[in-house]
Formats: sequence, structure tokens, C-alpha cells
Amino acid sequence: MNNLDLKGVLQQVSDGSLTVDDALLHLKELPFKNLKGFEDIGFAKVDLHRKVRQGAAEVIYGAGKTPEQIAAIAKVMLNNNQRNILITRLDASQAESLLKLLNFEYYAEAKVGVIGGMPEPDGIGDIVIATGGTSDIPVAEEAALTAEVLGNKVKRLYDVGVAGLHRMLAHIDDIMTARVIIAVAGMEGALASVIAGLADCPVIAVPTSIGYGASFNGIAALLAMLNSCASGVTVVNIDNGFGAGYTASMINHLAS
Amino acid sequence: MNNLDLKGVLQQVSDGSLTVDDALLHLKELPFKNLKGFEDIGFAKVDLHRKVRQGAAEVIYGAGKTPEQIAAIAKVMLNNNQRNILITRLDASQAESLLKLLNFEYYAEAKVGVIGGMPEPDGIGDIVIATGGTSDIPVAEEAALTAEVLGNKVKRLYDVGVAGLHRMLAHIDDIMTARVIIAVAGMEGALASVIAGLADCPVIAVPTSIGYGASFNGIAALLAMLNSCASGVTVVNIDNGFGAGYTASMINHLAS
Amino acid sequence: MNNLDLKGVLQQVSDGSLTVDDALLHLKELPFKNLKGFEDIGFAKVDLHRKVRQGAAEVIYGAGKTPEQIAAIAKVMLNNNQRNILITRLDASQAESLLKLLNFEYYAEAKVGVIGGMPEPDGIGDIVIATGGTSDIPVAEEAALTAEVLGNKVKRLYDVGVAGLHRMLAHIDDIMTARVIIAVAGMEGALASVIAGLADCPVIAVPTSIGYGASFNGIAALLAMLNSCASGVTVVNIDNGFGAGYTASMINHLAS
Amino acid sequence: MNNLDLKGVLQQVSDGSLTVDDALLHLKELPFKNLKGFEDIGFAKVDLHRKVRQGAAEVIYGAGKTPEQIAAIAKVMLNNNQRNILITRLDASQAESLLKLLNFEYYAEAKVGVIGGMPEPDGIGDIVIATGGTSDIPVAEEAALTAEVLGNKVKRLYDVGVAGLHRMLAHIDDIMTARVIIAVAGMEGALASVIAGLADCPVIAVPTSIGYGASFNGIAALLAMLNSCASGVTVVNIDNGFGAGYTASMINHLAS
Amino acid sequence: MNNLDLKGVLQQVSDGSLTVDDALLHLKELPFKNLKGFEDIGFAKVDLHRKVRQGAAEVIYGAGKTPEQIAAIAKVMLNNNQRNILITRLDASQAESLLKLLNFEYYAEAKVGVIGGMPEPDGIGDIVIATGGTSDIPVAEEAALTAEVLGNKVKRLYDVGVAGLHRMLAHIDDIMTARVIIAVAGMEGALASVIAGLADCPVIAVPTSIGYGASFNGIAALLAMLNSCASGVTVVNIDNGFGAGYTASMINHLAS
Amino acid sequence: MNNLDLKGVLQQVSDGSLTVDDALLHLKELPFKNLKGFEDIGFAKVDLHRKVRQGAAEVIYGAGKTPEQIAAIAKVMLNNNQRNILITRLDASQAESLLKLLNFEYYAEAKVGVIGGMPEPDGIGDIVIATGGTSDIPVAEEAALTAEVLGNKVKRLYDVGVAGLHRMLAHIDDIMTARVIIAVAGMEGALASVIAGLADCPVIAVPTSIGYGASFNGIAALLAMLNSCASGVTVVNIDNGFGAGYTASMINHLAS
Amino acid sequence: MNNLDLKGVLQQVSDGSLTVDDALLHLKELPFKNLKGFEDIGFAKVDLHRKVRQGAAEVIYGAGKTPEQIAAIAKVMLNNNQRNILITRLDASQAESLLKLLNFEYYAEAKVGVIGGMPEPDGIGDIVIATGGTSDIPVAEEAALTAEVLGNKVKRLYDVGVAGLHRMLAHIDDIMTARVIIAVAGMEGALASVIAGLADCPVIAVPTSIGYGASFNGIAALLAMLNSCASGVTVVNIDNGFGAGYTASMINHLAS
Amino acid sequence: MNNLDLKGVLQQVSDGSLTVDDALLHLKELPFKNLKGFEDIGFAKVDLHRKVRQGAAEVIYGAGKTPEQIAAIAKVMLNNNQRNILITRLDASQAESLLKLLNFEYYAEAKVGVIGGMPEPDGIGDIVIATGGTSDIPVAEEAALTAEVLGNKVKRLYDVGVAGLHRMLAHIDDIMTARVIIAVAGMEGALASVIAGLADCPVIAVPTSIGYGASFNGIAALLAMLNSCASGVTVVNIDNGFGAGYTASMINHLAS
Repeated sequence: MNNLDLKGVLQQVSDGSLTVDDALLHLKELPFKNLKGFEDIGFAKVDLHRKVRQGAAEVIYGAGKTPEQIAAIAKVMLNNNQRNILITRLDASQAESLLKLLNFEYYAEAKVGVIGGMPEPDGIGDIVIATGGTSDIPVAEEAALTAEVLGNKVKRLYDVGVAGLHRMLAHIDDIMTARVIIAVAGMEGALASVIAGLADCPVIAVPTSIGYGASFNGIAALLAMLNSCASGVTVVNIDNGFGAGYTASMINHLAS
Repeated sequence: MNNLDLKGVLQQVSDGSLTVDDALLHLKELPFKNLKGFEDIGFAKVDLHRKVRQGAAEVIYGAGKTPEQIAAIAKVMLNNNQRNILITRLDASQAESLLKLLNFEYYAEAKVGVIGGMPEPDGIGDIVIATGGTSDIPVAEEAALTAEVLGNKVKRLYDVGVAGLHRMLAHIDDIMTARVIIAVAGMEGALASVIAGLADCPVIAVPTSIGYGASFNGIAALLAMLNSCASGVTVVNIDNGFGAGYTASMINHLAS
Repeated sequence: MNNLDLKGVLQQVSDGSLTVDDALLHLKELPFKNLKGFEDIGFAKVDLHRKVRQGAAEVIYGAGKTPEQIAAIAKVMLNNNQRNILITRLDASQAESLLKLLNFEYYAEAKVGVIGGMPEPDGIGDIVIATGGTSDIPVAEEAALTAEVLGNKVKRLYDVGVAGLHRMLAHIDDIMTARVIIAVAGMEGALASVIAGLADCPVIAVPTSIGYGASFNGIAALLAMLNSCASGVTVVNIDNGFGAGYTASMINHLAS
Repeated sequence: MNNLDLKGVLQQVSDGSLTVDDALLHLKELPFKNLKGFEDIGFAKVDLHRKVRQGAAEVIYGAGKTPEQIAAIAKVMLNNNQRNILITRLDASQAESLLKLLNFEYYAEAKVGVIGGMPEPDGIGDIVIATGGTSDIPVAEEAALTAEVLGNKVKRLYDVGVAGLHRMLAHIDDIMTARVIIAVAGMEGALASVIAGLADCPVIAVPTSIGYGASFNGIAALLAMLNSCASGVTVVNIDNGFGAGYTASMINHLAS
Repeated sequence: MNNLDLKGVLQQVSDGSLTVDDALLHLKELPFKNLKGFEDIGFAKVDLHRKVRQGAAEVIYGAGKTPEQIAAIAKVMLNNNQRNILITRLDASQAESLLKLLNFEYYAEAKVGVIGGMPEPDGIGDIVIATGGTSDIPVAEEAALTAEVLGNKVKRLYDVGVAGLHRMLAHIDDIMTARVIIAVAGMEGALASVIAGLADCPVIAVPTSIGYGASFNGIAALLAMLNSCASGVTVVNIDNGFGAGYTASMINHLAS
Repeated sequence: MNNLDLKGVLQQVSDGSLTVDDALLHLKELPFKNLKGFEDIGFAKVDLHRKVRQGAAEVIYGAGKTPEQIAAIAKVMLNNNQRNILITRLDASQAESLLKLLNFEYYAEAKVGVIGGMPEPDGIGDIVIATGGTSDIPVAEEAALTAEVLGNKVKRLYDVGVAGLHRMLAHIDDIMTARVIIAVAGMEGALASVIAGLADCPVIAVPTSIGYGASFNGIAALLAMLNSCASGVTVVNIDNGFGAGYTASMINHLAS
Repeated sequence: MNNLDLKGVLQQVSDGSLTVDDALLHLKELPFKNLKGFEDIGFAKVDLHRKVRQGAAEVIYGAGKTPEQIAAIAKVMLNNNQRNILITRLDASQAESLLKLLNFEYYAEAKVGVIGGMPEPDGIGDIVIATGGTSDIPVAEEAALTAEVLGNKVKRLYDVGVAGLHRMLAHIDDIMTARVIIAVAGMEGALASVIAGLADCPVIAVPTSIGYGASFNGIAALLAMLNSCASGVTVVNIDNGFGAGYTASMINHLAS
Repeated sequence: MNNLDLKGVLQQVSDGSLTVDDALLHLKELPFKNLKGFEDIGFAKVDLHRKVRQGAAEVIYGAGKTPEQIAAIAKVMLNNNQRNILITRLDASQAESLLKLLNFEYYAEAKVGVIGGMPEPDGIGDIVIATGGTSDIPVAEEAALTAEVLGNKVKRLYDVGVAGLHRMLAHIDDIMTARVIIAVAGMEGALASVIAGLADCPVIAVPTSIGYGASFNGIAALLAMLNSCASGVTVVNIDNGFGAGYTASMINHLAS
């Protein structure tokens, strides 16, 4: 709770410009309405006061929501002066219906919608996003678009899996100069360790559900990444490109 | 491979100050000896050229090594001008023997040894380390000491688990002004989500093996943290305080 | 076994109004037939003597039953003076067919049918049902409708997940005055712990299969809830809204 | 936050009997110091304002704490007028040391210590605690002692497993008249379903780690209990006798 | 290898009525062609010499075979004087096509086809097949039809789950006089333990994949049955009605 | 409930030789004391009316019981005319203490005690017990001794694992003439399938916890056995030699 | 890095025929471009310098690629003088579309396409591929076609599962004279152990996802194969016929 | 069965030099005694006819055997002219006792004993054994000693984990010229993929139980290796150095 706000209210009570009851109401609303308000639209409580940098995007998780619900949430956000909105996990048929309700750009491979277009990058450095194979690209694109809509410059290094090390080593400059790296891989998930062994920036590992048999829909990659023998690796959920892109952006916007 | 080094060699070959054969030998040694050399002492290949900032610590993973092996590795490092060395997973009996071979400070709760003392903090902000309960403290201390030996200022918020939310809320200022937060929790691992919902900096979640029954030695906490509904959370291995401290330090040293 | 019944039978044998063989048959049937009767309709043995309070609903588990089977079971119940009948796990196509055979109200989101309408609430206090997100609402509604058809007043707090704590804290009065709380959440399932830390009534936690990747269809939430560090939490099966609503109603009807 | 308290403070500000700064301090401390205060003793933040009924016990989780830590926490509680304190997961050697620091009664089988003796039962009905076998008794006793120290009358039905149904049926009166039942069982965990099929009160199922091979330290029993086909069953963590006893007491103290 | 056959061959060699080379050929073919011959039809090696009682049925596992393959295998069997043939895991569309190629009776619920009709029962006693619920009936019917086609009399006790014990107890005579019992149950799988506690004959437990959430497609029931506290219970694979029926028939045909 | 007993009582009431009240008392005790009585000795309810054949053994599960408890239970059994008593899971130190309280023979490898000696075999045929390796012998011996104390003749075929098929084939006569076979194996558990492919009697498979790494303490063998492609295989819990021996004895005593 | 190449470059710098900058570029590209080149076509980096024997096939993993992507990759390969190309995991509808873009032979059962036809076998011995049942054939065919396109002679032994040992023993000569054996089996996966016990060449075990219930889509077979008690068995991923065929071919081409 | 042997027997019967009964006995013993004999010493059936190359070693699995049992088995082998015998999984205390009974060399780190010394290498090429870290060395040494006692030359590349790629690349010549490679690694197990991507010989991957938390005693490494994206990788059980060494030797002895 903000001391200045509180003090102002008390001052007004003290000098009589605010009645006790009005002050009471105000104080009760303070922690939630002012600091971190939200708007209740029945099926959702839209968070409005999440402290965000000027121009940064807000996010709607599309899975399991009807196009109407998504549109309603987006409208609350737009009415509250949000400029860029990212919609994740939006499949093609949802997108088709939603396009009749809202104006946005749809990225089919990543299942991502963007309202308000991409902002100018204002992050400090580059975010490198690498994938082990071609099949990991949709998850990588979710990460990439998330990072871009949050104001980051992204370099994509796709299909550089460890079984053909020379393909990765050919891009060693990008790896060594990145500010954050997102390593996206399924199957045995070795990509994160090898990249983190080469880089000296934080590496966010994203296991993907790509593979078959004993990949167990990404568990093999997840475990490999959690057990990385290279320092500087942290891990997000299987297929969670959004989470990786979001955290990478956070790190890339940390000023000195 | 360093372009300047290479160019220098070629220049010398071009102007005749270096014979082709000497240049050949030099070039062959370059990538491994100069750029990223290591010293082979039989049971280990000690990495010497990992690019580290002046004064930063090097790390020895103590588990499964004899005191003699640890001392030998440390000596190679010290001979190569390493000033601060962190030894993790060093249990009390290893430490006792090692103290006869080496001069270092032992932190029993965290099972961590530090050679060369703690450096002056040179990180940009504060690293906040929170635990759910008292039993999570050893893992948290491994993270804290790792961060400190790598040059960070650490704030400890211990025993602020979500079942008594007011204990955490009493420290909301620390949470809201941290540059990176490490959330250490066993059992249901909810701490990371709640903190990440309050903070707007990266949160590194460390599941601990604290609990019993269906905690499955940290799996419950690990899964909870991977599935965090709050953005900005990444996860390291169960009980991996070192990994969290190391990555937090990386983030805390990223200059603009 | 009821002593009075036994004594009556013996009395009749003693005074000759009942033959020994009839008494024998009667006694053999006593423990099973009289105390808790059922009617055998081939594919099901409909339980009729479950001791229920006046007006309480009986339940048919719809999954894997044909509309004809459900209608047959419902008819046996109605013939035995059951007034309110709850049909759970009744999907839309089953419901459509069943509506041609029976008169009932269908709640599509919860996949629940109610025969005989909702009774007047006769529970002692309020049952609060909270969800972590919008996607958990179908499970929550199964719990809510179950509780309502069993005679309870229900307060719904939907989308109050722990990543935006202020949304939950805004309803702290409801939480603190509830007689029983049902906490419905998928992903990391932290909702139950946080609510139980605020409330001082029993909290029934319902993990949902909402999530992806390492949520493992609700296992992450289930484990988190079983490991809750808050006292007063018990858990039901993944997506088992019915079980939570039923037990909550039991507790809410326990008279002093 | 309590409206009356707030209003009182504002009233005092309004009439000048409290300065703005003192009011500010008071308001800031209110939610945490007055409503739900805690005392920070370094390794623990002892919760003091958990709203408890007169005479009810407070709980210390003993596992992983030194006798000195337990004694220190207990002293803070006793200084704050707590009369009965329960210490759980206190093994024999901890207990021996602790007895030198504190006066309490130790129950070895349940690994439970009780400071201040057992209170008079003030619960509404009886709590029945049943076990499948002899080996489940330690967990059952943890539940029983927890319930007793929280003011409940407990009936113990031990060794009534489903493989010898007549042993349970001999106690059907106890089962049918209980206000809450705690069913404690390892191996196949069928006890909970069979009891819940006979009773019409809430049944709290406690899986135990008793068994071998495919019991997987209680997972078999846990899964069985979560999948109970009987209504009214909720489940706690494997071996969590305390949790079951605590929740049972909550239910047994719910007044109309 | 049959001693008499071998001795006859040697006798013929000894008395000159068989040349050494013919004997050699004969001996080489003996173990595989005569004792346990099979016919190779490309995609399958049809086993023909499995020692079976006169009139007993042979079995074709239908899953993953085309109707043409099934018909071809059946024809080899019929050509080798097999009278009753059981086809399991034959879904409706396979059955429809197969009926154009072969004459057989199709049991849709159990997904079983029977060529040559049901034989007269020649087993020693009755096989009782009990299910926990209505949804377990398809698996139970696979067991029942298997047992019947192998010459057994089957008593069906369906929907006698442990949550309504009186339904099972009403059939206690059937349970107590059976020669073998097959207990078919999903969810918590407690049926096997309760029946085995009442019966004194072998109980073959069949876990089914019926349930949801933490039933994990039959794992909960499987584990419960493996951990049965009642003696005399053995277990087959999840949904393996055939295996249970086959073994029950073996036991029921063991003569003194 | 025994009809004759009941009928006798009713007859006496009918002819006046028994008053209604005395009959009432008698009847109330009937179902539990006479039909299936047990004796309650505090920590255990000793089952006394389990219908057993003359001379057959009763069983005490030794794990987790004190020598005093075992002795007390055994005494109740002996006082009720039990002649042979099997004590399983009795480790060496328990056995040593128990030998001071009771007279019995201890089989150290199988961790089995036998009170009253081995009875004369009265089973119909032979029980063959085979193991894959030497390390499986303790579990096999638990099965063998259980079968012997229950009156069976046992043939032991140890160390006949499938990696050296000729060792098993050398005993094919024993396999082909057995009435029941118990196949005991750890690691990949293939023994059961191979034996069942050769035999035409029921095969009870016992997975053992022998192995390392991905044997997961018997899970690999358990799964293999549950998935046996050979008909006639049923499975018991990992290391459950007793269960296999008990069921095998049941089958071996089934008269025509 | 090839010394001759390096020396040549330095020689050219030394004699002035190569500028320092051109040499620098050349040297930087050497380790990655020349030794093991690849061609970047956007969504894939096609590996071109994998050292392969004249005539050997290159491989495209078809799963998750569009026909257009597959055709593009194949064209790069063909342009680089690749004669035989294997396309795996190519389902029927992909194949149909691809046939419009490329000329190749499609093997529907194995889901394999072959461009350029089968080469003459140049392996040293025979590769024997055995399956436990008919349903394992598709995986076995993937292995067989992979081996054939890589220049091996393959003997197929299908449907020789261990439940009918004589079917396998009839082919013991093939087993004993193979250079490598691939054992393909689902369910309990015992085939590998039994074959490896008979053979004295390397056995590559391929678990298949064939089975149901506790086969857990191949986990049972995988674990059994990893725990094989027979020496000489190594294992590949579930359903990984390609991997087995590829490694078998490697072994079969190892010259003395 | 050997045709020549058979023909000889028949010839003798034909010419009267062998009676029919003696021939019968001989023929019955042939397949098991002559082709693949074994000696039964009670607790073990020692395999004697495993066709092995002159001088090759026989193996005893030491785990779970007493020193006396091991000595007895070794003596049977030595009596049958075995020159080199390998004893695996022999811990220090077993070794100490065994050294009093037998003359052999003990390798403590690998827990391996060797009777008869190391033979001269007669394998075709080199076996390279690489480990990810220092802690993997014991498993690697089990593989190395196994390979050496079976007559192979071994190159050890220890501590070349993927987090410091340059350490492995410094040995690329060894990797590229090996005939077989054994890759031993715990934690994330990425070593196998990276090596197999560089080599073109078979790579046998050995996951180790090294690691903590989510390494799950080697499961993470096992899964990673099974999912290797590099071709030519096969896998053995966790910590199974012996199995890898044995198969590598087989491959290394395959003549053209």
C-alpha cells in the first residue's frame, strides 16, 4: 500500500475535506482498485493495473475461451488504453470467428494473434531463439512473437540440433553475443546444454512435445533440460513458448 | 575463434615473421588452448578459459569427489589466477578432510565451501531469496551463498509460505523492488506463483525435496512451478540452489 | 441390525403368527433387504434405501450409460418417491436423446441434468466455490449444481487465481464467512493452499485437468493440493466436481 | 480488514485525538500486526493471530527442526497465551532432547508431543477412526491425538480391513452414528469406499505407506481412495494423520 | 519330445526298416512338425498342435488384423478340425466385413465373435463373474463369453460394487459356492478384495479402464488389486477379460 | 448366516423352549461370533471362523508386528485348535526374539516361520516353482514354504532363466506335468511367458524386485508379466511369494 | 581440422597468392563449411557432408513436414548427387501428395518412401529381423526397408513370439548365423532376451507400442528389453524401426 | 541340433554298435548336454557350452551372491578350462572375503574382479569409452574392464561433457576413428547424441544414476538417450557398464 496515498487521505480527513465514511470506502478500495485494479465481466476478472512499461503488450490466453469471451476481454483492455494485445493458443477456427469481432493479425503456425501490431523494439539486446529441429518451430514462433510484441529484437536459429553440431557452430557469433537465449527442443532436449556451454548469458530452455515413444510428449526433453550440466539454464513448461518469450523480454528490459 | 588472434597470425605469415609450420602449430592449438583451454589432470579436465568477469568465482561440484580430487582441481584454478572459488555439495566429512588440504570457509547448512572469501557485490540490484518454510533454508542458503560469491547483494525472506499470506505481504516492498527473485519451496510449491503474481521481475523457482508422501521428493513442487499461472517464472532442478543463484547472478550482472 | 425388527419377528414366531420357515427367510433377508433395499433392473441394481434427508436429491452417473438406461433408472427412482434427481457427466448428445424420454433441465457447461428442479436451500451456511481461472468453470459448475440440488446456497468466486492475488483478496469476506469452501483449480493448483490459509472452515480441493505439458492432465494440481501446507484441505479426484459438491453438502447439513 | 477498527481510527483522526502520522502507522500495522500478527524469530515466523477458538491447540510441525528451534517456537506460543500445543512428526530422539527443554507428554507410536495436556472435548459428535490393519495404527494415532488435542471425542476401530468384512460390520453402529469418519489404510486402500458406502457422514481417507512392491509407498492406496466409487470421501496426503484429524475437528466443531 | 515316438523310429532304424537318412529327416521334423506343429501363412504362423481337449475352442486375437487375415487364420484352424473358435477384440466394422467371409455369431458389447457356436459346458463347477458397475460389463462379457466358449457355466453378478455392499451380500451364496470367481472393476478396484474376503476359491481380478482423472485408465484399479489384502487374488492386465476367462476355464477343468 | 443354526433357534422359539429375549440375544451374536467370529486383542482382531479345511495352516503377516504381538496372535489361534501356523515376512531379529516366546521352525532365506511343522501333502498334484535366477530364490522359497505348509508337494526349478533356454527345456517334463506353476522372476520377467507357452496349466507369475536401474524394483518384471502374450498367466504383487503359494494351493486342492 | 588444408592455406598466404583477409574468412569457415557442409533452405538446414559410403542412402524424417518441405529437402539432396533417399514416417496422405511432386516408391505398411530404388546389398552378412506377433510387422518393416536401402540383405522372421517357442526354434539356424539381429516386440517384450540367449551376435531390441492396458504404449516392452538378462542386447526407442535398421546396417558394414 | 552328431548316432544304431535304449538316452540329452551343456550346483545352473572364442572370458554377476557361491561357480568354470573370468558388481566386502577363496585381481572403482588376468587384445579396432563427468567413471570402468577382459583395446575419454564442448572436440580424432563408442553419462545424458553426431560408428549409450532431483536416478539420462536425434545410438540399462562393454566387444570382434 502506497504511503503517500494513505497520508493524503488521512490529511483530508484531518482537515475535514473528506468525511470518515468516504475515507473508509476509499481506504478499502485502495489496495485493489488503485494499485492493482481489475474489472469483473462475469466469466473473467480482467486485470488492469499490472504495472507495465509504456507501450508493452497485455496477454490473453486463448485456449478454452470462446471468440466472444476473447473479444470481450480485449475490449476491456482496449478501453483501458492498452495498445498491443497478444492472444496465445488461438487455433485456426477460433481465429476465423474472432476476426469477425476484432481487428488483429493472425500467425497460424504459432497460433498467436496480435492486436495493435508490433511495437518498435525497446529491449536492450537481442533475444536468440534456437530450435533443435523443424518440428519445434511452432513453439519457437510462439516465443518469438511474444518477445516481439513485448518490444524485443529476435534472431531465429532454427534446425540447429546437436546431432549436426556444425550447423549450430556456424552461428556461434549469434549465440555468443545474445543477451538472452531461448533454446527450444523436443526429443532428447540436449540443445539447451550445448548452447549454454557455449554462451555466457541466461538460457531459457523450452522442452517441446515433439517426438514419439519414450519422449512421452516432452517429458524426456523436460527432464534433460532440468538436469542440464551447464550453468545458466532455467526451464519452462513443455511447449510453453509464451512463458519463455515473456521472461526473456523481462530480462532484456532490465535496465542497469 | 577470435578473429584478431587469427588475423595476427596470418599477418605474421604474410610478412614472413612466422613460418608456415609454426603458424600451423599455433593455429591448431588456438581453439582449445587459447580461446577455451582446459588442463587435463586425469580424473578431470579443468576448464580454464570460461570467460568470467574480473573477480568472479569459479565453481567445483563437490558431490562424488574425494577431498584430494577437489583440492587438486582447486589448485589448478588458483594457479590460473582464480580468486574466489565456490565448492557446492560438500558434506561435513568431506569438508573436514578438505580443510586439512586447503584454506576455505565452510557453510555447513548449505554444504558450501568458499575459497578466497566473498567479493564486494558488483551486481546491479538485489536478489531476493524467499522460502516457503524453515526446512527449505539449506537449499535457499546454497542459492544465497552462490549469489554472494558471484558478487551479488542478497535479501533473505525465509518462512513466508502461502498458508500464512500476511507473512509474505509484510515484505511486499522487498518483493516489488527486487531485480531477480529466487523462490524456494517444497510441498505444493505455490510460493513461486504467488510471488510472481506480486513482482514484475524474473522469478527463478527452486522446488525442494521437502515434504512426504505425495510430494514424491520434490516432484509435486516441481510440477506446480512448471505449471505456474504467473508469467515470468522459470524453474531449475529440485534442490538446485546453485543453479538458481548462478542464473540470478547472470541476470543481475547484465548491463544495459 | 435393528433390534426392534428382530424382536417383532421372534414375537410373531413365538405367538404362531409367523411360521419358522417364513421367519427364516425374513431373517436372512433382514440385514440386506430391509436396511438398504435396491431394485434389480438387469444392467443396474438401483439403490433405494440410502438414508437421505427429506427432499434431498438422488444421483445418476451418466457417463457410459445409454439414454434409455438413464431413463429406466430415473423411473425406478421416481416411482420410489424421489423428487429431485441429479444426472452427472451427461454430454450434449445424451441429453438431447434423454430429453425425449424424460422431463428435466439440462446445464450444458456442467454437463449436468436435474429432474424435479432445484429444492429450497436447507443447508446451514453458504458453500463458496472458487476457481483459479475461466477454464475451471465447468468443473466448478458441476460442484455448484450438485450442491444446489442437494439443498445448499452457493456463492461463486470464479477466476480468482493466485497469480492476481488482489482478485481473491477482494472477496475475502466471502471466504472468511463460508461454512465450506470448494477450491477448483488446474495448472499448479495453488488456489487451495492460499484460500485455506485465509479461511478457517474446511476446504475441499478439486484439481482440474486444465493445463498442458507438465500439468499431466491434472496430476500437477492434484499433487499440489495433496501437499498443501495449509491445514483443513482435503482433496477429491481430478475434475470431480460432483464429489466435492456432495461432501460439501454433507458438511453443510451437519446439525449441531 | 475490519471495518470497525478502521472506522475507529478515522474517527479519532477526524476529532483530532490521533495525529495523521500515528494513524498512518496504525493503519499500516493493522492487517498484519493486529488481525493476523506473527513474531519473527529468525528461522521462523511464528503465526500468532490465527483465529482460534478458546482452548484450541496450536501446532508445530517437528520434522526437520532442532529441539532448540521447537522449544523456541513453543515458547513464543506459550508467551502468547496458547494453552495446548501439538508437536507432530517428533521422533524419539528429538523428543528425548526436547523433554530437557520443555514439559510435555510424548506419544511414541504416533510421534506426537502434547504441551499443556488434553482439553475437555467440546466437539459436537464423535470422530470415528478406523484402520485396515495393525500397521496403520501409527498414522491413525497421529489423527486421533490431533483430534483429541483439538477438543474431540474419538472412537478407535483398528484392524477392520475389508478382507474380513465381519470385523467392520460388527461395528456398524459406530460407523452409522459418527459425525465424521477417518479411514486409514495402506495396501489397496479399499477401507474408505466400504465405510463410506455404509456411513452417511463425511469420510476423510488417509492412505498410508504400508505395503510393499506395487503399493509404491502408498500410491496404490492414494489412487484407490481418490477413485472411490462411494460419495462423501475426500482424501489427504499419504500418512497425513494430522491433516485428517485437523479437518475432522473443523467439521466436528461447525455449529449450526 | 515324445519318448515312444523316438523309440519307434530308433527301433525301425535298428531293424533296418528305416534308412538312416529317412530317420534323420524324421527326427529333425519331430519336435516342431509333429509335437507342436504350426502352419506358416506369411503374416502369421498358425499354431496347430497346442494340446487341447476335444471340442475346446481356439482363439484369434482380432485387434490389428484385417478381416481377410482373420478369415485366413480361421480357415487353417477349421481345416485342422477345430470346432469352436473365439475371436476377441473384434470391433463392429471388422465384424461386419468378416461376416461376409465367415459364418459366426457376433457379440457386440464384448467385441467377441464365436465360430461354431457354444459347446456344452464340461467344466467342473460354476464360474462367477462380478462387476463393480454397469460400465465394466463389456470387459466382464469378454471374460464370460471366453469361459463359455471354452466349456464353462457362467453366473453373472453385475453392478455389485463395494459402495453398496448389500447388493453384493444379497448374492453371497453364489460367491460362496463358486469354483472360480472373476472380479471385474475399474475406479478403486476394491471389489476383488471384498469378494476374496468372502469367498474361499481363487479370485481372478480384472482391472478395467473405467474411471477418470486419477484412475489413470485402470492403473488405480490395477494397483489396488495387486495390493489386495485378501488371500487368493491374482491379477490380469487392464481390460483383459479374455485372459481371466481363459485361466478361470483352465482352473475349472482341472480334474482331481 | 448358517440356515440350520437360525432354524434351530426359531424352532425353539416356536415350541416355547426359548424365550423371545434369550433368542434375541442369541441371534444378535450369531452372525459375528458363530459364523465368522473373531477375537479382539486390542491391536488386532484375530479372524477365527475363516472356513479352512481340516489341518490347513493359518497365516500371520509378520512385517511391522512386534514379537510379542505375533506371539499373542499365534496363541489365540492355537487356543482355537489351529495346528499349523505360517508366519511370513519375519526377519532374523524378529525371529530370534520370537523363538524365546514360541516354538517354531525358522526358514531364514524365505523369512518364514512355521509353527506346528509341515503337514502331509494332501493336494491333488505337484506345484512347480521356477525362478529366473539365483537371486529370486528367497521369494520362491516364500512361495514354496507357503505351499508346503498348506499341504502341497512342491518341485523347485531354480535358475532356469530365458537367456539360457536349454536349462529350462531340460526340465520340460516337470513343466508339462505340473498342476499349477509359479514363475518367479525379476529383471525382464520373461520367464512366465516362456513357461506358460510350454505348459497347459495355470501359471502364477511373481515379479521380484531383483535387478537395478530401469528394473525399478520390480516394475519392469511386473509389467512384462501383466502383458504376457501367453494365455493362462495371472500375476501377484512384486515379491509376493506368499500370495502365489496360497493361490496355487487353493487351485491344487480344488476337487472335481 | 585437416592439416593439409590448413597448410595449403598458410602456404598461399606465405607466397602472397591469398590475402590475409581472404585466408581469415577461409579459415573461419573451414571447420564447419568444408568438413561438414549444409545448405540452409529456411525451415531446414540440409546436412550434405555427412561422410557416407558411395551409393548409401540419405534419410528424411517425414513426420510433421509438409509434402512441399519434403520435396524441397529431397531436391537439395538429389542436386548434391545423393542416389538413394529414404523417407520415414510418411503417412498415406502425405505420400499421395508427395507422389505428385517426386518420383519414389511408397511402402504403405512401413510408412516409408524410397527415392532412387534399392541398392545392391553390400553389407557383410545377413540382418535377421524377428517380430513377436503380426501387429509388430509395420515397425519391423520400417527397420527392414531402412536396412535394405542402406545396402543390406534382410531375413524376416515374423510372428515367432515366445508364447509358441517352437515357431522360433524352427528358425534357429537363421538366428545362429545372423551378423546382427533386430528383435521387434510389444506387450512383454520377451523376444529379445530369448533370441539373444540363442544367438551370439549383437541383438538390437525394438519395443513396439502394440498392446493395451499395462503395456502403456510400449513402456512394458521397453523396460523388459532394457532389463534383458541376456548379454548382447541394446535397445532403441519405442517403435523406432528406423534407428534399429540404421545401426544394424552400420554394424553390418564394419569391415575388419 | 547338429546333423552330423545325429547321423553318427543313427549310423551306430543301424550297424548295431549302439542299442536302441542307449541311443534314445543319447538323443534326449543331445540338445541340452552337448550343444549347450550346463552343470547344476544347486543354487545355480552353470552354463558351460556358450560358444565362446578361444581365450574369451566368462562372466559371473556378483550381486546377491555369497563369496562361497561365487567361488563355487568360478571353480566349475575353471574346471571346464575357462581361462579368464570376469566378476561384476562385486563390492569391497565381498571381494575381501572372496580373495581368501580365489586368486583374482580386484578393481575397486568398477567393482569388478578378474580371474586369470587380461588377455591380449584380439578385437579389430579400438573401443572408445567417453564419460560426461568424473562421477560417471565407475560405470565407464565397468565397461572398460569388461571390454578388456574380452580382448579389446580401450581408449578412455573421461570428463568430456557437453557443457564444455571444446574438451570433447579436442579428442575428435579418437571419436572419428573408433570402431565402437560407449558414451556414459548421467544428468541430461546429452553426451551420446553429440558424440553420435560426430562419429560414424555405432554408439552404445549408458545412462548413469548420477545426478539428483529430477534426474530420478538415471531416468532423465535414459530417456534422453532413447530419444537421441542422432542415428546409430542404441541404449542399455542405467549403470549397465558391463552390457555396453560386452556388446561393444561383440561388434569389435565381428570379422568380415
